[in-house]
Amino acid sequence: MDTDVYPRPVSQIASWDLEADVVIAGYGIAGVAAAVEAASAGADVLVLERTGGWGGAAAMAGGFIYLGGGTPLQKACGFDDSVDNMAAFLNVAMGPGADADRVGDYCAGSVEHFDWLVRCGVPFKPEFWGEPGWEPPGDQGLMFTGGENAYPFNTIAEPAPRGHIPQMANKKAGEASAGYMLMKPLVETAAAAGVRAVYDVHASALAVESDGRVAGLVARQYGKPIAIRARRGVVLAAGSFAYNDAMMAQFAPRLLGRPGASIEQHDGQAIRMAQALGADLAHMDATEVAFLVDPQQTVRGILVNGRGQRYVPEDMYSGRIGQLTLYHQDDTAYLIIDGDAQEEAMAATSPTPFLKRPATWVCESVAELESEIGLPAGVLQDTVRVYNDNAARGEDPLLHKKPEWLKPIGTPVGAIDLRASCAGFTLGGLQTTLDSEVLHVSGAPIPGLYAAGRCTAGVAAWGYASGISLGDGSFYGRRAGRAAAKN
Amino acid sequence: MDTDVYPRPVSQIASWDLEADVVIAGYGIAGVAAAVEAASAGADVLVLERTGGWGGAAAMAGGFIYLGGGTPLQKACGFDDSVDNMAAFLNVAMGPGADADRVGDYCAGSVEHFDWLVRCGVPFKPEFWGEPGWEPPGDQGLMFTGGENAYPFNTIAEPAPRGHIPQMANKKAGEASAGYMLMKPLVETAAAAGVRAVYDVHASALAVESDGRVAGLVARQYGKPIAIRARRGVVLAAGSFAYNDAMMAQFAPRLLGRPGASIEQHDGQAIRMAQALGADLAHMDATEVAFLVDPQQTVRGILVNGRGQRYVPEDMYSGRIGQLTLYHQDDTAYLIIDGDAQEEAMAATSPTPFLKRPATWVCESVAELESEIGLPAGVLQDTVRVYNDNAARGEDPLLHKKPEWLKPIGTPVGAIDLRASCAGFTLGGLQTTLDSEVLHVSGAPIPGLYAAGRCTAGVAAWGYASGISLGDGSFYGRRAGRAAAKN
Repeated sequence: MDTDVYPRPVSQIASWDLEADVVIAGYGIAGVAAAVEAASAGADVLVLERTGGWGGAAAMAGGFIYLGGGTPLQKACGFDDSVDNMAAFLNVAMGPGADADRVGDYCAGSVEHFDWLVRCGVPFKPEFWGEPGWEPPGDQGLMFTGGENAYPFNTIAEPAPRGHIPQMANKKAGEASAGYMLMKPLVETAAAAGVRAVYDVHASALAVESDGRVAGLVARQYGKPIAIRARRGVVLAAGSFAYNDAMMAQFAPRLLGRPGASIEQHDGQAIRMAQALGADLAHMDATEVAFLVDPQQTVRGILVNGRGQRYVPEDMYSGRIGQLTLYHQDDTAYLIIDGDAQEEAMAATSPTPFLKRPATWVCESVAELESEIGLPAGVLQDTVRVYNDNAARGEDPLLHKKPEWLKPIGTPVGAIDLRASCAGFTLGGLQTTLDSEVLHVSGAPIPGLYAAGRCTAGVAAWGYASGISLGDGSFYGRRAGRAAAKN
Repeated sequence: MDTDVYPRPVSQIASWDLEADVVIAGYGIAGVAAAVEAASAGADVLVLERTGGWGGAAAMAGGFIYLGGGTPLQKACGFDDSVDNMAAFLNVAMGPGADADRVGDYCAGSVEHFDWLVRCGVPFKPEFWGEPGWEPPGDQGLMFTGGENAYPFNTIAEPAPRGHIPQMANKKAGEASAGYMLMKPLVETAAAAGVRAVYDVHASALAVESDGRVAGLVARQYGKPIAIRARRGVVLAAGSFAYNDAMMAQFAPRLLGRPGASIEQHDGQAIRMAQALGADLAHMDATEVAFLVDPQQTVRGILVNGRGQRYVPEDMYSGRIGQLTLYHQDDTAYLIIDGDAQEEAMAATSPTPFLKRPATWVCESVAELESEIGLPAGVLQDTVRVYNDNAARGEDPLLHKKPEWLKPIGTPVGAIDLRASCAGFTLGGLQTTLDSEVLHVSGAPIPGLYAAGRCTAGVAAWGYASGISLGDGSFYGRRAGRAAAKN
């Protein structure tokens, strides 16, 4: 029971402990973007952060920002892209349920958003990394991060890499923290613009005028209740509900107990305090899904489900493989890979060597392997035979893995058990306008309330691409800051 | 924009047009069950119905009520069942996300609920129908309706049929209206107990005391605004959101524009007026899915996806085949069926002859058929060969279709195009206690507010069985009526 979440009438607040024009809950990517823009628009800005410092999940993330439409970085790396091309991809890849208006808006503003990040001091090295992987191994600035160059997406739009990665000097393998190089310059920009931040403040409810207008927040700081007045607007930017087990059971039960790329503060409180005011929600079942195996392995084998059938081209974006495996294949997958391919994969460059897995079973024949795994007799043998026959000709008519990765599977043949190898975070949340106003179930904005980042339903609906969260969090965080400042 | 949905302070209501102890919005199955029980508990009860008469979707439905645990009807038909056995099935079949507490509660009360329906005058004929089909062809009273006797469910619990069907005299093929014989005696019971009903009343918002207690509703009757006071409680029983396109886009986009077994009044208004008070939601992506082909055909062929692979035992409950096809197979399925089997299916008894489909393609060989359909070469041929080899031995190691339906596929061989053959209604909605109190996002009940039926998240989470909606609607409708009456 969380009775702290009930909206607090301003008439019941005896005095305000803190005050600003724009008050932002959460100092991750959406919060800092809102802060910079609200301050630039002349507002006095205060950020309330629940932990002891800025950063949120963003500062610990791989740092991808999904941008395109012809950014200077794309051009410097030799890639053509356009707003329409980017939108054509996202409308399919972010669905079912992708909002074409939001996708179009995001794509149209993408180049300007990149320029803004650069102006704020975020560094990008104009170097493309083309190998399979969750991240680049070094400080390369551009990567494919959504399966743009895999089937069927490569037939829907011209493949262009859109994962923009801040340059991290002295990055070490296994230390996925380019997100820090996104957050640090933005926080410095905010500080230079006069943004104030207070830490260890846990917002619990919204303060509301008698006419329904949001006038601030109530919170706890070191356990003590405090009230914070927002003269112009409140921006909610406090992350997902991946760590709220009750909400996960209600909305995304398959990921219950398996949060990934999240921080414990992602408890859904921002969503709930707005719901308590009648805020609307969207896409609550949608999640990002990390598939915990190195893509250098996946691409060199074939993935089969619990019936021994292939279901996804193995050169697809790993996050999509994760979604398809968790939701469509009952969280059951086996990677069939021969000895040579496994050896090659183990030797291949990867920033995530800890995700490289030994074979669970190794056999002299597919028939034996099928039996060892416990698959029904015959199907895996057929699957491998059909794959091999076609691969020998450089073709994959079933799933269209690209010819460069097609190689008949020989012996000894192994299988990596990839059951229960998924984790992730939620993509659903508050329903907002393109100006980041939080919508009431009536369809009208709730006056004085704005939101961005993973407490909102953003560009992704059911699909995902790495960089969408830092992308729409920063993009619509800026919108929230601007809208609140001029409110 | 629906600004009518904002909660209305009682202080703003000049006078009440109607008044009762318990006011119920919706005169379908949940509403009538609530009415009967509230009246039995001594309350003065008023039902507000939006259309010109009682019935809702229930009166037009096949009339299945999902009950078990050893009902007199199950016993009369020679079937053993127990509360634990029923719960073991439902906990798996209604998931992921099934609520074990609610499932246990529903199963424990199931026999008593059947007896109550009989006491209210609902007739059941003690005759079992064992053929594949969406419904029985005549007035038989009991059927399998959730795949209890199909793999894997037949390995999880002892199969028992639980679809209880009110007896409909003079039922004609194609007129699926046993639901009328459920509603009629219940409405008569309610009327005899003094329940009043007013029609053409469209509830739009809840009326609320300054302390947050729900005190009634505001509505429109023939376009004129009216206010209805509820001295003890309001029960929301107004159905799903299958006909609200905005909500469908937000929560269940794959069924957008394809409502099934729904009525146009299922616009989600009850959900939204409670959300406007901070009510919590659950399972918003979950839906029932009708697969629009006659089960007498499905069971006699093999179903393959867009890759030519089998994915479900064809003797599974058709609603589950629909869910797996729509959500896991990208709404793409083909039924491969030979000439003899098709002829047998067309001649088989079915109450839904309009769902029997001619073959879309007919060929002399599977290789030709594969090419005609446009499937990648080889996979369908392998699928049929493996199926046939095993079927000849009476086995289906891949999916465990029951031996009685296993027969090698011969020639001529046809395929029925079952792409885009799904329709359905939503299963998500308001989060309630087992006493049907509507929960606020705080986790506390909203005083004076109750709900049941398809505007709530009930026994089904992601899964479904026919009869669950009339089952949990009537079961938790009764709870709502009792709880409101004693409030």
